[in-house]
Amino acid sequence: MPIITLLTDFGVEDEYVGIMKGVILTINPSATIVDISHHIDPQDLLRAAYMIQVSYKYFPPGTVHVAVVDPGVGSDRDIIAVKTKEHILLAPDNGVLTFLNNDKRIEAIVRVENPDYFLDTVSQTFHGRDIFAPVAAYLSAGLDISKLGPPLDQQNLVTLCIHEPYVSENDELIGTIASIDRFGNLITNIDEKTLKKFRKTASGTLLEIQMGEYKMIGLSQSYESVEPQSALAIMGSRGYLEIAVSCGNAEQHFIAEKGDIVRIRLTERSGH
Amino acid sequence: MPIITLLTDFGVEDEYVGIMKGVILTINPSATIVDISHHIDPQDLLRAAYMIQVSYKYFPPGTVHVAVVDPGVGSDRDIIAVKTKEHILLAPDNGVLTFLNNDKRIEAIVRVENPDYFLDTVSQTFHGRDIFAPVAAYLSAGLDISKLGPPLDQQNLVTLCIHEPYVSENDELIGTIASIDRFGNLITNIDEKTLKKFRKTASGTLLEIQMGEYKMIGLSQSYESVEPQSALAIMGSRGYLEIAVSCGNAEQHFIAEKGDIVRIRLTERSGH
Amino acid sequence: MPIITLLTDFGVEDEYVGIMKGVILTINPSATIVDISHHIDPQDLLRAAYMIQVSYKYFPPGTVHVAVVDPGVGSDRDIIAVKTKEHILLAPDNGVLTFLNNDKRIEAIVRVENPDYFLDTVSQTFHGRDIFAPVAAYLSAGLDISKLGPPLDQQNLVTLCIHEPYVSENDELIGTIASIDRFGNLITNIDEKTLKKFRKTASGTLLEIQMGEYKMIGLSQSYESVEPQSALAIMGSRGYLEIAVSCGNAEQHFIAEKGDIVRIRLTERSGH
Repeated sequence: MPIITLLTDFGVEDEYVGIMKGVILTINPSATIVDISHHIDPQDLLRAAYMIQVSYKYFPPGTVHVAVVDPGVGSDRDIIAVKTKEHILLAPDNGVLTFLNNDKRIEAIVRVENPDYFLDTVSQTFHGRDIFAPVAAYLSAGLDISKLGPPLDQQNLVTLCIHEPYVSENDELIGTIASIDRFGNLITNIDEKTLKKFRKTASGTLLEIQMGEYKMIGLSQSYESVEPQSALAIMGSRGYLEIAVSCGNAEQHFIAEKGDIVRIRLTERSGH
Repeated sequence: MPIITLLTDFGVEDEYVGIMKGVILTINPSATIVDISHHIDPQDLLRAAYMIQVSYKYFPPGTVHVAVVDPGVGSDRDIIAVKTKEHILLAPDNGVLTFLNNDKRIEAIVRVENPDYFLDTVSQTFHGRDIFAPVAAYLSAGLDISKLGPPLDQQNLVTLCIHEPYVSENDELIGTIASIDRFGNLITNIDEKTLKKFRKTASGTLLEIQMGEYKMIGLSQSYESVEPQSALAIMGSRGYLEIAVSCGNAEQHFIAEKGDIVRIRLTERSGH
Repeated sequence: MPIITLLTDFGVEDEYVGIMKGVILTINPSATIVDISHHIDPQDLLRAAYMIQVSYKYFPPGTVHVAVVDPGVGSDRDIIAVKTKEHILLAPDNGVLTFLNNDKRIEAIVRVENPDYFLDTVSQTFHGRDIFAPVAAYLSAGLDISKLGPPLDQQNLVTLCIHEPYVSENDELIGTIASIDRFGNLITNIDEKTLKKFRKTASGTLLEIQMGEYKMIGLSQSYESVEPQSALAIMGSRGYLEIAVSCGNAEQHFIAEKGDIVRIRLTERSGH
């Protein structure tokens, strides 16, 4: 039961995704196809990269993950296939696999060039149908990635510039809002490990999280652990710190945008 | 070929639903997963409850239905599994299974507490991934619900307050608009049985349906059975009375909202 | 592994599509169901017709394609099943199969009338659930279409009025914008064959494409082959000429609408 996941910026209004599935099932009728999302904003490579990072590990070994967020379709950008110990990933070489870059479990990377595994006619504008779908289908049926084209060195992959959180001169951990989900939750770029390290190295016992002028004290255990319409900070399911509003929408509450600054500091409990 | 249906408020922009499917297929690779909807407005428990009620019976026996409309995630609300003669339903105990409450075919209800069937790490904010998906997968693979936790009495389930239609002092059947679909059709809370009973007990032969100032006479047989842009009343496919506009949109036509009143009365044919 | 594709105007907010899948899987548990789109604007039969035309051939032989774009549901419009050499198509007889009309590979057309293959109760408003889904399931399980009802002559099918491109008195090829996709690309009704023929019969060597006051010279090979924010003409993946804007949105750039005129002429290279 081979699985293929699809992440694209095609939307679901048009027939693009359905056609990709038709091509896949024609080549490998036993493939199970799972949609991750087709609602990436065209050309939002960073969001696509985040989504792949947080989702692919939840699929069983052998899954083929396909990302077609590809503003350079038809130009001379490469298409790459990456084999890790457990998964195969297929994407344009435009940075959407940035988070794999330091993954020790990568076993092979190839440039996808062999037209034997493409549709007979390759259009200039729909490689999702003509290249990604058939190649994914063959991979899911057991094709070795070495058949697709020449090996590529991990160093030579295109990577995106990722904003990392840092500790400022006055001992604040400075992060940014990396994405905002449908519930209006603000997902920062501060992961659990970074936060733990900061707590160890900075002095103070009380965690203070500041978003604009608003300060939150400590991490909450659930979205409902504070008063309705109050803001809270919580370690989110993706492993990143999130700012949320209980029974509300933090994006609207803070009039927040991607890139907004979040400041974290450790203070002493005041008053006694 | 076990089937799992998913009803959530996660939307499809983010990767949440895809990840749930990855978790399910890792545990039970032969599961067929069907989306009911992921577009419930966050915290619209009533709409979720309606959707479960009108959809679950159309699936084959043995289907596992999962509803993750769960504003209380991470709080101390329970998760429950309900076994009826033919189906299994898995949901937070927050009222989304309200319509099952009087179902004579319920065989067992348990509180889902056994972490053996959860992911190893359970986050505070994404029980869809960490609890609902793995539990559904195990259930679809044949796990007996008694393994999940202690039995729960049907009387103790959380239920939603449902507005029921009633007959007023001047012999009108008073209903409300319970939901509005994508076509702008206004779906009332008046079901076929209630309407039939009203026709028997009230006097008069002509059914008059009043929405605002507008009166419709009799039930139509199709959306196109009146003049284009005219309003009509029709017994809808969910078994509830609907108000529609032929080749048009009743929501816009009436500037209607959920909760609006619909009045039904029986009169005599006038004029002869 | 029989495949059923679904094209509807039901949207995905409501439970309609999920219920259709439940009905299908109850009758044929081994069916693989693929969504083409559920976002057709209600009553946009032409767009549905285009989508079927460009997608169905990418599915394996034996696939059953179901189109429920059906403003006349409950009226006396027919439902038809069409068997071509490789596929089966099921749709209301309202023109959504218009592009099949001259297909030499049609082997049989029948009127779908036999209630043995419907749900026991057929509602007035949801034939997708009560007729299309069960009939598609039986077809995918091998039912011969002759069992569904009497044969129908191809000549008698309802057809849509399709705007065809034409050559004007001053030797311009006049096309229109037939659809606009999610990226804002303007898809004309000028297909590759028509363009080739025009290039042969008209005099001049340089292709000039005019949209409003803006003129583009020649066809581009990719969306990125011109300066960012510049317009370009390209032969699209559907086999029709498209107008796009590099790294941008042609719909917004040209304030374009469906039905807008595109003029194509051949000129001589000027200057030498």
